[in-house]
Amino acid sequence: MDLLSIENPKFLKKFSIKELEQLSAEIRQFLIEKLSVTGGHIGPNLGVVELTISLHKMFDSPKDKFIWDVGHQAYVHKILTGRAKEFDTLRQYKGLSGFPKRSESEHDVWETGHSSTSLSAAMGMVIARDLKGTDEYIVPIIGDGALTGGMALEALNHIGHEQKDIIVVLNDNEMSIAPNVGALHHILGRLRTTGKYHWVKEELEYLLKKIPAVGGKLASTAERLKDSLKYLFVSGMFFEELGFTYFGPIDGHDFQALMENISYAKKTKGPVLLHVITKKGKGYLPAEKDKVGTWHGTGPYKIETGDFVKPKISAPSWSELVSETVRKLARNDERIVAITPAMPVGSKLEKFREEFPDRMFDVGIAEQHAVTLAGGLAAANMKPFLAIYSTFLQRGYDQMVHDICRQNLNVFFGIDRAGLVGADGETHQGVFDIAFLRHIPNIVLMMAKDENEGQHMVYTALKYDEGPIALRYPRGTGLGVPLDPELKEIPIGTWEVLLQGKDAVILTFGTTIKMALDAAKALAKNNVSVRVVNARFLKPLDEKMLLEIFNEGIPILTVEEAVLEGGFGSSVLEFAEKHGFTNLTMKRMGIPDRFIEHGSVEKLLEEIGLTKEGIIKNVLEVIPKKEKGIKYG
Amino acid sequence: MDLLSIENPKFLKKFSIKELEQLSAEIRQFLIEKLSVTGGHIGPNLGVVELTISLHKMFDSPKDKFIWDVGHQAYVHKILTGRAKEFDTLRQYKGLSGFPKRSESEHDVWETGHSSTSLSAAMGMVIARDLKGTDEYIVPIIGDGALTGGMALEALNHIGHEQKDIIVVLNDNEMSIAPNVGALHHILGRLRTTGKYHWVKEELEYLLKKIPAVGGKLASTAERLKDSLKYLFVSGMFFEELGFTYFGPIDGHDFQALMENISYAKKTKGPVLLHVITKKGKGYLPAEKDKVGTWHGTGPYKIETGDFVKPKISAPSWSELVSETVRKLARNDERIVAITPAMPVGSKLEKFREEFPDRMFDVGIAEQHAVTLAGGLAAANMKPFLAIYSTFLQRGYDQMVHDICRQNLNVFFGIDRAGLVGADGETHQGVFDIAFLRHIPNIVLMMAKDENEGQHMVYTALKYDEGPIALRYPRGTGLGVPLDPELKEIPIGTWEVLLQGKDAVILTFGTTIKMALDAAKALAKNNVSVRVVNARFLKPLDEKMLLEIFNEGIPILTVEEAVLEGGFGSSVLEFAEKHGFTNLTMKRMGIPDRFIEHGSVEKLLEEIGLTKEGIIKNVLEVIPKKEKGIKYG
Repeated sequence: MDLLSIENPKFLKKFSIKELEQLSAEIRQFLIEKLSVTGGHIGPNLGVVELTISLHKMFDSPKDKFIWDVGHQAYVHKILTGRAKEFDTLRQYKGLSGFPKRSESEHDVWETGHSSTSLSAAMGMVIARDLKGTDEYIVPIIGDGALTGGMALEALNHIGHEQKDIIVVLNDNEMSIAPNVGALHHILGRLRTTGKYHWVKEELEYLLKKIPAVGGKLASTAERLKDSLKYLFVSGMFFEELGFTYFGPIDGHDFQALMENISYAKKTKGPVLLHVITKKGKGYLPAEKDKVGTWHGTGPYKIETGDFVKPKISAPSWSELVSETVRKLARNDERIVAITPAMPVGSKLEKFREEFPDRMFDVGIAEQHAVTLAGGLAAANMKPFLAIYSTFLQRGYDQMVHDICRQNLNVFFGIDRAGLVGADGETHQGVFDIAFLRHIPNIVLMMAKDENEGQHMVYTALKYDEGPIALRYPRGTGLGVPLDPELKEIPIGTWEVLLQGKDAVILTFGTTIKMALDAAKALAKNNVSVRVVNARFLKPLDEKMLLEIFNEGIPILTVEEAVLEGGFGSSVLEFAEKHGFTNLTMKRMGIPDRFIEHGSVEKLLEEIGLTKEGIIKNVLEVIPKKEKGIKYG
Repeated sequence: MDLLSIENPKFLKKFSIKELEQLSAEIRQFLIEKLSVTGGHIGPNLGVVELTISLHKMFDSPKDKFIWDVGHQAYVHKILTGRAKEFDTLRQYKGLSGFPKRSESEHDVWETGHSSTSLSAAMGMVIARDLKGTDEYIVPIIGDGALTGGMALEALNHIGHEQKDIIVVLNDNEMSIAPNVGALHHILGRLRTTGKYHWVKEELEYLLKKIPAVGGKLASTAERLKDSLKYLFVSGMFFEELGFTYFGPIDGHDFQALMENISYAKKTKGPVLLHVITKKGKGYLPAEKDKVGTWHGTGPYKIETGDFVKPKISAPSWSELVSETVRKLARNDERIVAITPAMPVGSKLEKFREEFPDRMFDVGIAEQHAVTLAGGLAAANMKPFLAIYSTFLQRGYDQMVHDICRQNLNVFFGIDRAGLVGADGETHQGVFDIAFLRHIPNIVLMMAKDENEGQHMVYTALKYDEGPIALRYPRGTGLGVPLDPELKEIPIGTWEVLLQGKDAVILTFGTTIKMALDAAKALAKNNVSVRVVNARFLKPLDEKMLLEIFNEGIPILTVEEAVLEGGFGSSVLEFAEKHGFTNLTMKRMGIPDRFIEHGSVEKLLEEIGLTKEGIIKNVLEVIPKKEKGIKYG
């Protein structure tokens, strides 16, 4: 059928299994083709084609509510709810979001992006439904990887306790983003391999009949034995323990099995868990064969070969630079241990794991645990390196305050994907970390101007022994500068003047340095002399240099690819206030007080005016009026 | 024996059970007497007397490491490690901390205060030990309530996976702070009531022998049956599922049983779970009989009667005022639902639960889930009220950003215990919330000057339908002002001038308003005319009033009982910068960039200079020099 003509999922009601299978093939073809151009989460979506179709056939969205955990697997849902025609704009500026988006469709009832939130949100909707007395089904769909996240476990616990009607679909693809870790995975593994439940049940019932009745004691034992059938044969009935009725394991690519079990679930009172086994990348060989997570989310690729169409960039990615520098230093410092919450590939820690298998810990999607685990290591005089995306560190905020900074422990945080991340959009922008970290006592927070300074900062962080220290670095690659062969320490709290100037000073760091230098060069042509400072320590500030600047009375422009509220610029304002500099000419540029949606980083920066041109405009605004005659065109 | 003479726990090695029992009685007597004067966590500590003694007898602290989850049950540990003599200063300024404190003793290896961190920290120490090749035991002690916290579950999962040696003591007192909730509680309940494991095992083995062997199939079934013995009889082997060796349930007041099981645990490889059943308040009848958590943590009490020695205060507590106002409004608004993460007593939600049992949800220690659950309710057009302590909301930061504010959902947050909390100390101070919330787009953040305004703000929040709104309120009681019979809406983003003045303006809110007014009155006597503004909306600011103040050019003093970095004062600086007010005389008062320890709020405020006198001093500093001749003495 013509996928572009789909307006809503009602047509599925009358489709036969044969037609559903045909539709699945068409959707797979569509996804493989479209994503080969736009990139996107191909693996997860190819895995849930039959599952998504079955859900839309058996339930009535939007009356019934689907809550897609993590959300990057909702492409098929988007196709079935009338958005196929927008796939050419997927993850692009003002285009289709890569995640559920309430403004896109009434079928998107909850927005996700971070893992493990769906069960809590669904439970809220369940309580609301029961209080209102309506009868819609609430169906969260959660992956096995997301289930290791603490808040999912908190929610399972609550759901099991309340015993309200809810159908949880566990999409078990044996691999979340990286091969799964954790004991929970072993339990699912056993569920997966135990085979047919019914067959074993009959076998045991036969066995039970052979047991001679020898009084009350044994009768009760036999009773208990029967109750525990499920423990025996779908060994590890974790979910039944928690109060769920369990159906599964179900072949997630078999329409018959899916629809049968969904119909059982619909008839069951209380919490139900549908355990569906799917294969990530199903139907596209390069993605099916992926064992490490390369095909989880990709850029454009060649369909025939599965080769990635990579932009030609010779510089190392920031993740690689940081993790590889840590690896080198780990050779001479046995205290160094690396931790990742389920992002060994994204954080480029594979080589570290290869070289130091005993000193690398992938704790799964478990950011809170990851932070405090690092704290425990530091308390025992080790030097843990926690590589964590800025947006995911938000989950460890309390642990940063309470466990790390309060106890002033020597943990090195590699805050990856700091700043705007682009296509993943508002749930993944790493723009809050300065604002949520710099008010915590004891932390050192830094960002490098290029990868050479970056490697020195890694060295600095691992040498530093006076408390927590964090290096934030952006998504993507460095500038391609040469790397010094010798690593050196950068004195904590020191900035660096990159360009001298006397009419105004720009204080900036990391990704925005280049546009500041470009702006300064352009302004120089018009006789405006702008100093550019690499404000590489966001905490502590370079107090000496700042006081000199204040005393000089030169107008100041702060530029940051981070939220303005409580950000770096504010810390400069605070410092001026603290030292009584009341007659300050200053302007702050950064991310305004709203969420920034998806699109290329370039487009987004343009949207918020964080560009060379924006800097020029603002410099001209801060320099004293007498000089404002200068024209820049 | 003389508890005051104890210097370390070595003396326990040669104590007989009889002597240990005698010691237990003495420790109980000591605690009951000392805490009747100082107050403190009496219930939890009376429950762990035998457990703590047994641990110190069987292990060698500080070589072996005890990590006390939550930490308020470490009093017995403090007595046994030489701190009995300091108990008169418990929880007082510069006195003994109510929690483990590394600066107090080498036996305190990890500091706690928030729940559910111990397993992660312990696992860090385990990894460190194994990398270093030393052989100390690592022993986290965690309560059943703390086990519902997501990060504890994340850690259990990781520990089970790694299979390293660790001895987790589950202190199961059937009641955490409030009666426990959640499915996990049911599992523990079953463990608790199943009775003797060994007896049943023999019974089943007898039974198994009766089973006729009928070929391979049955043989393997019998094998599996044997493996699953533990499922059957300590039904619900949640922990074994996760990869732990389970010992228990153990009577936590029986030295013989405790020491026997600890010695088994010491000989066992891999993760061990010691399931110890204790009784909160054991040995002191008023505390033993407590069913709701009144005796969890208390102020001073009369030993004979168990009556609390309460300071005579007629004003309602802030928690009560807010929760009761919500309850009244819930009668006419069916959308209102109350949520608490394990704090129904502290947050005074008992009456709400009584009147609206279907509309009140205690989700246990599960702050992340609590926040997103509220979001799910709001997405389904309900009006959830989440009562949560400021310090515990830190755990829900990502959910606030990602689920609530990003989706702009109508959740009403009652941020309790905002500001300094006093005796509980640095882990419980509610001083970060403004800094970690105000940079999140869409949120409204307010604080009332007194309980009358407070009730109007509750009304305002529940009427407000444009996104998340939070009311922060302090620990303790209101001022005792009369309450208007009619509730009214306070226009969002409006401040109020409480006192007119022309020489300087103080912008402040909540608890610090009184000292600002007192300071203004004192200054008035010296002809300094100070305006005092109730800056009751911390976000959005009263932009109109602020612009007027800026245009006036009057010196500004901001005063807040919250961290200065990124706080309210900074938002005023930011607003001035945004509007180009570069010649501003302004000073900020608040909490400096360090953690504030325990002590009475009064003493702590004095320490940081947040007093009437401090305000007077700062006002005199900000007013123009020509007026500085004014003396205040």
